[in-house]
Amino acid sequence: MSHQENLTAYIAAFVGELVTAGVKDVVVSPGSRSTPMALMMAAHPELRLYVHVDERSAAFFALGMAKASHRPTAILCTSGTAAANYYPAIIEANSSRVPLIVLTADRPHELRDVGAPQAIDQIHLYGRHVKWFMEMATPEDSPDMLRYARTVCARAAATALRAPAGPVHLNFPFREPLLPDLLKQNLFEHEERTDKYVGIHSGDLTLSTEKYQEISKHINQFEKGIIVCGPIDNSELTESIIQLAQKLQFPIIADPLSQLRSGKHNKDYIIDTYDTFLRNDEGRQALKPDLILRFGAMPVSKALSGFIKENIAAVQYVIDGGAGWRDPSAAASEMLYCNERDFCRSVAKYASSAKRSRYLKRWVDLNDFTKMSLRKVNDIAELSEGKLFWQLAEFIPDQSVLFVANSMPIRDLDTFFHNSEKSIRIMANRGINGIDGVISTALGAAAVSGPVYLVVGDLTFFHDLNGLLAAKLYSLNIKILLINNDGGGIFSFLPQAAEPEHFELLFGTPIGLDFEHVVRMYHGTFTRVSDWSSFNSAFQRNIEDDGLSVIEIPTARDRNLSEHRELWNDVSQEISGFLKEE
Amino acid sequence: MSHQENLTAYIAAFVGELVTAGVKDVVVSPGSRSTPMALMMAAHPELRLYVHVDERSAAFFALGMAKASHRPTAILCTSGTAAANYYPAIIEANSSRVPLIVLTADRPHELRDVGAPQAIDQIHLYGRHVKWFMEMATPEDSPDMLRYARTVCARAAATALRAPAGPVHLNFPFREPLLPDLLKQNLFEHEERTDKYVGIHSGDLTLSTEKYQEISKHINQFEKGIIVCGPIDNSELTESIIQLAQKLQFPIIADPLSQLRSGKHNKDYIIDTYDTFLRNDEGRQALKPDLILRFGAMPVSKALSGFIKENIAAVQYVIDGGAGWRDPSAAASEMLYCNERDFCRSVAKYASSAKRSRYLKRWVDLNDFTKMSLRKVNDIAELSEGKLFWQLAEFIPDQSVLFVANSMPIRDLDTFFHNSEKSIRIMANRGINGIDGVISTALGAAAVSGPVYLVVGDLTFFHDLNGLLAAKLYSLNIKILLINNDGGGIFSFLPQAAEPEHFELLFGTPIGLDFEHVVRMYHGTFTRVSDWSSFNSAFQRNIEDDGLSVIEIPTARDRNLSEHRELWNDVSQEISGFLKEE
Repeated sequence: MSHQENLTAYIAAFVGELVTAGVKDVVVSPGSRSTPMALMMAAHPELRLYVHVDERSAAFFALGMAKASHRPTAILCTSGTAAANYYPAIIEANSSRVPLIVLTADRPHELRDVGAPQAIDQIHLYGRHVKWFMEMATPEDSPDMLRYARTVCARAAATALRAPAGPVHLNFPFREPLLPDLLKQNLFEHEERTDKYVGIHSGDLTLSTEKYQEISKHINQFEKGIIVCGPIDNSELTESIIQLAQKLQFPIIADPLSQLRSGKHNKDYIIDTYDTFLRNDEGRQALKPDLILRFGAMPVSKALSGFIKENIAAVQYVIDGGAGWRDPSAAASEMLYCNERDFCRSVAKYASSAKRSRYLKRWVDLNDFTKMSLRKVNDIAELSEGKLFWQLAEFIPDQSVLFVANSMPIRDLDTFFHNSEKSIRIMANRGINGIDGVISTALGAAAVSGPVYLVVGDLTFFHDLNGLLAAKLYSLNIKILLINNDGGGIFSFLPQAAEPEHFELLFGTPIGLDFEHVVRMYHGTFTRVSDWSSFNSAFQRNIEDDGLSVIEIPTARDRNLSEHRELWNDVSQEISGFLKEE
Repeated sequence: MSHQENLTAYIAAFVGELVTAGVKDVVVSPGSRSTPMALMMAAHPELRLYVHVDERSAAFFALGMAKASHRPTAILCTSGTAAANYYPAIIEANSSRVPLIVLTADRPHELRDVGAPQAIDQIHLYGRHVKWFMEMATPEDSPDMLRYARTVCARAAATALRAPAGPVHLNFPFREPLLPDLLKQNLFEHEERTDKYVGIHSGDLTLSTEKYQEISKHINQFEKGIIVCGPIDNSELTESIIQLAQKLQFPIIADPLSQLRSGKHNKDYIIDTYDTFLRNDEGRQALKPDLILRFGAMPVSKALSGFIKENIAAVQYVIDGGAGWRDPSAAASEMLYCNERDFCRSVAKYASSAKRSRYLKRWVDLNDFTKMSLRKVNDIAELSEGKLFWQLAEFIPDQSVLFVANSMPIRDLDTFFHNSEKSIRIMANRGINGIDGVISTALGAAAVSGPVYLVVGDLTFFHDLNGLLAAKLYSLNIKILLINNDGGGIFSFLPQAAEPEHFELLFGTPIGLDFEHVVRMYHGTFTRVSDWSSFNSAFQRNIEDDGLSVIEIPTARDRNLSEHRELWNDVSQEISGFLKEE
């Protein structure tokens, strides 16, 4: 076999199997060493190929696609620092359990550690932050080696998907010349086992019936139970968790990323204003639980984490089908490694039906009262970060994706974006909560789903400006609500604010950019609003638009801080009053 | 001791020692976990502190400062993906031997791998791409632990500097609350050993006198010797290498990054057009060496690497004071691990003086002839990438720094930017030759040295657009010559160009951006020139300007390819003619 025949057959086998394994989208960054794989991907009729020059944005873009589609998504880049640019998105994927297949091209062995250009040590380049790493064999067209290429590919996709989902990394040494023969007949027709090479069937973690019965019996002993549902993106879970709540008569403390706050399902048990009323001492006292059933990652609300931590005496079951250790408060009493839906169904089946308790009523009443009390955020005449989310909940069209950035937006969303009959999928990068890659992740979601609304502050927007290129090149439909308070708003809420001398330099970090320029460079529309009426008309106008649009909402960091504090104070006083009357 | 007293004393000791160890510049990215170190750095009167929101650009910015100043430069960021954004610059620093001190803040041990926010496994986060990693102890104010903090700091700086220089990584676990007491008296006055805690004196690698004599004797046996000087940034080496050439009567094949092409030193032996004449078969035949003395990293010229590879029978000494393995052609016959200047001086001392050979004359004559022949690039009427460098060599002011991007600019510089009496420091990121971080590296150089001229293509410019923020925030003086051929120009020169179907999609990758918008966002001036006369006037106008200015030179990729091919063809024919006459 010639060098080119070896290269062609081996890479075609790999790329063909990628499609068989369910990969539909690949994100390629330009480079020379990755040529064989890039050309083969471009030649495959069933792959959607996106090109992204900046590998950091490329990887976050793929992360967004994989998050939104629950399909493994592949990224490909050349050797050298290109591959290092993938690192932030890989770490986020690993932590937030998103299936990514990372393919890096490399120099062949004889060109490593000898000062050859663009050659670095790519073996275990991402350390412990990928689920699986394989250094691939050099291309060879023999039955054994084609079988190997296809098997590794199938394993990579299955490993990326298997709970907990995450990134895998395959490193490909390619020798020059790098051009495969794309004119070869039946390039992607596997000669042997035409469908897939080997099927990989991954079971879910499940406890024994006896164990579920024992747990159910145990749970039934508690009167003051709550279900805490943190970030977990599994639409199949919704109904089972609600059935469990009905059976046990427990409230569900629903993080905005639990996907429980919006949709047509029964919301009688869904508590969505706890972030506010758990700041109130009397509220926390009135609601002390003796049992906590916890699903998903840790919720965003600091008030809730504090509440969990101060109720360390309560029995706490942590249910995790991905067998992690999601317990920063060190408050868990039992770790249950089993599929979450399985758990809900089993306990709903084996537990006895509970009656509606005074305790549940207290959660629901306090939630209703707080929601009413919070409405006063709408009275704020000036542009306000909190009110924005209330407005958004009202105006966002059904079936949209709402992507929120970290720092303040996700927190304000938690406080002000409540239950809704609309089906709004809420997404965020809550693995590591970074300010990096947010635009690209949202655009990736837009590439595989409907229109995306992204709410983002100015520093996070700045960090991934390069990500906007995908919106231009692929005409993606994204509507960005850019909260511009010229700096890091969240720091005003932290003790650092007490250091007036260095605060603006190190934490406030105003960058003073007029983003209209850069949005125009990417052929987007830009509207800077000055009041709520201009916001509303800009928002309505943008609903029908395709492509990239940015509405900038200028706010002030210090006013935002005092607004939040005043509001929480007011509401807290009302809550205290309400609890006394009760 | 209280928590705050422990934190304050320990971090003050560390930061104080950082200054004692010679660190003058720190680049901090905003974040919460890094608060103790960030505040302490801001409080130190002898540190220049730069804030950069995007950690990827921040690290390259620090790389540029360290490269230009030869001083270890520190970077600081918060925990999580922030730290992963440093990876590309760290890998470049490791490969190009630049001293960086990477400081990452981390959660304390009890908050690791338990689902706490922004917590990742930061132990050995950069794998094998740093010279040294230490997980720091939690802060403690005891004589032992202050001594420990100071000693580790001194070791970090010394390790970063010691040949081969490179990055080191210290990971700091910080427990809340994070505020140190900046009002403490005599914050940075070390009570014990006030100057430095321990002096670290690093010797250079040096061979024995007998070995140098033996080598000198061996070298004297060869008639056709050449000195190849690749990228090496050591102004102390210049004179010794020229003395060696004089003694041995060898030509010096000087890469543009050898720093030998410009300055007031004797240039009789400096060959600077080999990239052109070594493309000519007869030229290569006429110049076959029997001995090669090689210094520095591998030169950029592919013609030269090919020449070295085809002369694998020649004896090749590779001299490397950093004890690496810089031999991608696998052509070395002796690896000499000793300080380069030491080597030059010793051999100049022990070797017998050679007479000017016909062989040396042939190199010099061919070099002179080629340079004359290349002048015809100036006849190109249209804007041309090659001619740009000839023009630049003519117009660039003395004492400037010229930073060139990878891909085409460094290659065109190699071909068209010849010896000059002006003192022009030429810089590039030639460790891994990435297209990432180039703007930031150049701006880092501008922050510690005079005005910087940066020549960069559009994809490389795009990749690090965020880097421009530093130019705005710190009013840095940078003049960017932006060659805009809307895509990856270098690929047209590669075999990939033969794949017309997918070429533009995967390799040409036009992004179609009007960069004027983004330059204005960063308060820079932008001039798009349409011909050489407008280029010249824009260039002259910018010389006096401070701050950020961008001159865009629009070119076409296909015309650029044919221009280069025609020119090399013409010159090659003339060279063949010249060699026949000779």
